[in-house]
Amino acid sequence: MSITGTTRLFAIVGDPVAPLRSPALFNAAFARLGRDAAFLPMQILAGRLEESWPGLAAIENLDGLVVTMPHKEAVVPLLQALGPTARLTGTVNTVRRRAEGGFEGEMFDGEGFRDGLERAGHAPHGKKILQIGCGAAGRAIAFALARAGTAHLSLQDAAPGRAASLAAQLRRHVPQLSCSHEGAGIAGHDIIVNATPMGLRDGDPMPLDPTLLSRDQVVADVIPNPEVTPLIAAARALGCPTVTGRAMHEGQARLAAAWLGIEGWES
Amino acid sequence: MSITGTTRLFAIVGDPVAPLRSPALFNAAFARLGRDAAFLPMQILAGRLEESWPGLAAIENLDGLVVTMPHKEAVVPLLQALGPTARLTGTVNTVRRRAEGGFEGEMFDGEGFRDGLERAGHAPHGKKILQIGCGAAGRAIAFALARAGTAHLSLQDAAPGRAASLAAQLRRHVPQLSCSHEGAGIAGHDIIVNATPMGLRDGDPMPLDPTLLSRDQVVADVIPNPEVTPLIAAARALGCPTVTGRAMHEGQARLAAAWLGIEGWES
Repeated sequence: MSITGTTRLFAIVGDPVAPLRSPALFNAAFARLGRDAAFLPMQILAGRLEESWPGLAAIENLDGLVVTMPHKEAVVPLLQALGPTARLTGTVNTVRRRAEGGFEGEMFDGEGFRDGLERAGHAPHGKKILQIGCGAAGRAIAFALARAGTAHLSLQDAAPGRAASLAAQLRRHVPQLSCSHEGAGIAGHDIIVNATPMGLRDGDPMPLDPTLLSRDQVVADVIPNPEVTPLIAAARALGCPTVTGRAMHEGQARLAAAWLGIEGWES
Repeated sequence: MSITGTTRLFAIVGDPVAPLRSPALFNAAFARLGRDAAFLPMQILAGRLEESWPGLAAIENLDGLVVTMPHKEAVVPLLQALGPTARLTGTVNTVRRRAEGGFEGEMFDGEGFRDGLERAGHAPHGKKILQIGCGAAGRAIAFALARAGTAHLSLQDAAPGRAASLAAQLRRHVPQLSCSHEGAGIAGHDIIVNATPMGLRDGDPMPLDPTLLSRDQVVADVIPNPEVTPLIAAARALGCPTVTGRAMHEGQARLAAAWLGIEGWES
């Protein structure tokens, strides 16, 4: 790639940025496509997105942003328009400049996860799924699993009331979904999803007790880096099929790129 | 070059950005030095730098900026500290993040021009120089020529009073300088400097009547792109030695890079 005065910019805003894989993924795509564009890491600390927004908006050759931790909810009130999943979940992970001015946001974490799961050969349709973690990414994932025809979705979250509230919202929007939010053990589920940040940092506790897994259960994680979290490692040791956060991340990037007008991503 | 989550950022802010040569120049240096850094064009329109500043400042991995038209004066009040030439000229073309927080600015247009002139074999020391244009870049160039031991500096500017005001300031700060600001013709000068923006756009009038040049006069221009302005082309047709804006730009970039802590620029 070569950056000159004519290069169009995209960026991922978050903190930390050093472990992020999006810059390498998008820049490789730009190079492959011969597109005069660059995708940058922009480290913006928690609580500082609002003050930084007018500045980001004033960069005329900045065409779009990917938004990651800790800004996926904070960005929502700064935007002029929201896509359907962003409205439903109150979270945004991709922002594009509108022709009529201002910015529009949409959330692809959920559909990216679903896409990664399907490409790994574990389509959620008709499956019983246990999802641990109902934060920003978790909400989007639950909606995507519900829409994809999951037979039953069990939700858990350490924060009181969060799983119940998401379950209620899911029932309103996807009435055919069978959904529960308390007391479900690990047994009886076809797919176990970690949608918590546990595993991102060394020494994090496991999101679940892996000795309770059985080898026919698929274990999926949202953490892209490290790709093999302690949970994924434990599941593999037991012989469980696994889907890492890298699959979700590649799914997200694919969907975000298409929405940002980056054509030919998979050519 | 490859941009990942760990890449440090530098940028040039201005409008227009498409013709700027700094991104290519700095990124080639980063690649040569094996430095994990990228230099971006950031298009910010006239009058919008102030509102964009908190956002630029909030990008934690943005280590420095080059500032170009139309922001070289507008950036001054946004900074926490100024270098000596920035204080003297009220203009800034390079900004770096300070270890103690905030930003510091300095102006290298003048010394970059002087450096380019010297490297082209036309040191200003002891020379009689006519400088046309006393704006932001012109002020910095006049100070650099004065400090470098110019024998006599004749200043011209189409804006009433601007040449006189710069001449008075020069006399205060460089008392040994012989300096005039009115009525000097082209004849009798060893070096003629265009420090106006004329020549940047197609159809611009010439900053001076080239038929009045004689072939022993050096003609220098500040416009880096197009490198051969109509003035440079006319001077070459007459057989005059010429120094293009590219030499000034390379001088600026060299000095700015050193001040931004980019080591080994010329290795």
